[in-house]
Amino acid sequence: MPTNVAGPEIERLVQLLARLPGLGPRSARRVALHLIRKRETLLAPLAEALRVAQERIVTCSVCGNVDTRDPCTICADDARDAKTLVVVESVGDLWALERASATRARYHVLGGALSPLDGVGPDDLNLAALVARIANGGVGELILAVNATVEGQTTAHYIIDLLADHPVKVTRLAHGVPVGGELDYLDDGTLAAAIRQRTAF
Amino acid sequence: MPTNVAGPEIERLVQLLARLPGLGPRSARRVALHLIRKRETLLAPLAEALRVAQERIVTCSVCGNVDTRDPCTICADDARDAKTLVVVESVGDLWALERASATRARYHVLGGALSPLDGVGPDDLNLAALVARIANGGVGELILAVNATVEGQTTAHYIIDLLADHPVKVTRLAHGVPVGGELDYLDDGTLAAAIRQRTAF
Repeated sequence: MPTNVAGPEIERLVQLLARLPGLGPRSARRVALHLIRKRETLLAPLAEALRVAQERIVTCSVCGNVDTRDPCTICADDARDAKTLVVVESVGDLWALERASATRARYHVLGGALSPLDGVGPDDLNLAALVARIANGGVGELILAVNATVEGQTTAHYIIDLLADHPVKVTRLAHGVPVGGELDYLDDGTLAAAIRQRTAF
Repeated sequence: MPTNVAGPEIERLVQLLARLPGLGPRSARRVALHLIRKRETLLAPLAEALRVAQERIVTCSVCGNVDTRDPCTICADDARDAKTLVVVESVGDLWALERASATRARYHVLGGALSPLDGVGPDDLNLAALVARIANGGVGELILAVNATVEGQTTAHYIIDLLADHPVKVTRLAHGVPVGGELDYLDDGTLAAAIRQRTAF
């Protein structure tokens, strides 16, 4: 959109929208026009929701989750199993596990994975807080729910080394056939892992 | 994202983002997390840009374009050819023509196309203002830059009937092979139109 056609305000809105993940210049223009058309029902509520998010969302000082309270809802929930910590790379992973109701344990969000090529080292991750939580005692099992990528697995091994002196049981997610998955479409590594880690019927 | 995990504020943000065109629940969650991560550099500026848009963007009373001024920048530009009006369905189409620097004429935005099945009739379009602009005189040519769809063409014919009593020349966009297009991939209708409306070399 040329600057001289619509005001700079609209152009700035389009440029900011284009920086959202999954939106390019074309879809950003479409979103901007959609917002302008739905001014009362969508633009105004979204502007307000963003303002509230900006003001109130904080990072949990215990686990690294995002919430409008600190400690976050999960850390403050006494019904949660405090003896088990699930280590995830990102808040998105935490949300995914919660959607699946996969666990009633508590979490620890690393905020990424080790990736020397991207300049992400141990100091960039939420590791000191993790070691402190383990050193405080009370945690019996650490489930490393990192991604099954090179970075995720590197991070898992780093954490295992880091906690070598602590008497905590460290586990990781099972590899195998996704539920609903068809063998013919799976990669060799997954199939080999599914055979290797087969379970009794 | 379950309500009990992150606060209702984050859930509301995700729900609003999921209503944007092209975003589903999954990408809305991704966008929300991206915004929360980039609070200072993206969330705050976007919240501000939306607030400004909500406050200041108006519909041009002359042509139906959106801008932060009324009449809009194009209608207020004396360098624009006032004798030619380009009729478009939407502001997005106007932006597309301006990006292409396709014309120095002025515009008239209909705000849609006739579509009885969708309940869009003549009264829902910005047609009265168009007739008034033509009746005021001074317009020598009306370029119907509507979409090459059934709805667009129906709208074009309706406008031609509507202006039958006015001495204005009405033209439409050429049909033909898109620049850079390969014949083998074009539909029959486009190829037939390209042959029929062939021009001298």
